[in-house]
Amino acid sequence: MLVREMSRQECEDLLARLAFGRLACARDNQPYIAPMYFASEPGHLYGFATMGQKIAWMRLNPLVCVEADQVLSHTEWSSVIVRGRYEEFPDIPEYSNRRQQAQSMLEKARSLWWQTGVAAAQTRRDFDRDITTFYCIHIEEISGRCASHDPVEHSWPLAES
Amino acid sequence: MLVREMSRQECEDLLARLAFGRLACARDNQPYIAPMYFASEPGHLYGFATMGQKIAWMRLNPLVCVEADQVLSHTEWSSVIVRGRYEEFPDIPEYSNRRQQAQSMLEKARSLWWQTGVAAAQTRRDFDRDITTFYCIHIEEISGRCASHDPVEHSWPLAES
Repeated sequence: MLVREMSRQECEDLLARLAFGRLACARDNQPYIAPMYFASEPGHLYGFATMGQKIAWMRLNPLVCVEADQVLSHTEWSSVIVRGRYEEFPDIPEYSNRRQQAQSMLEKARSLWWQTGVAAAQTRRDFDRDITTFYCIHIEEISGRCASHDPVEHSWPLAES
Repeated sequence: MLVREMSRQECEDLLARLAFGRLACARDNQPYIAPMYFASEPGHLYGFATMGQKIAWMRLNPLVCVEADQVLSHTEWSSVIVRGRYEEFPDIPEYSNRRQQAQSMLEKARSLWWQTGVAAAQTRRDFDRDITTFYCIHIEEISGRCASHDPVEHSWPLAES
């Protein structure tokens, strides 16, 4: 397997194509991961969620990490990692335009973009439309790696090179 | 989409079947995610890595989260989340048996289990067989949700119920 670093443009293209990844947040140094549908543009990811542990933790600590990957086989994969900062778009007049922009981008990225968050909240029996939220991840660092098949076969333990 | 909680047995079965997920660790409340191949048994996940940010951070803070999911479609998916604690199996005589056990389980879970970590380190140009490591995640909490298609169609904004 040959692994190489991806360019920033390749990373952004992968995020736009997948529109799905995993978001990690942390409280008292305990990390937590949740799957996340998102819309992306250079520098930002946009998401939608119902209130739950993820949002509660990000309100306390906005430092997050998002990972998105495409695994075609063990030796053919791409993975992008974003370090970023959470910003909530609360349902108040000052954020009206930004909420509409986030919703519009999510609609373009994926039909039924709201469905997973709502269904998850309904499972918790705490769904209330008043506590849905739109949010943005400001991308502070982005990196990616992609792997392709190596015509030279290696074995473990690796031979001295 | 109908979402339900998975039983502990269902969660363990999914981890055993996938043998792949994402590991989040944290430093100074900044989370970091990396894809992870693992072998699992009830109560434990086993992994292999070359030295890098993930291992450096987990040595400083052993609190981790692992997420594994299988997404068949937007309305058919399963996702398991593990909260756990990292323990490294260093290459010293006292850990010899546990290292062998971890390697043996990883070999059963996936052929070429070592390949991704080594290739990633080679990309960083810092690969050294002396700094590969086996480790264990002690599972302290495990939960999962799975979704299935809902025959009743909903739309956004959701109608009053």
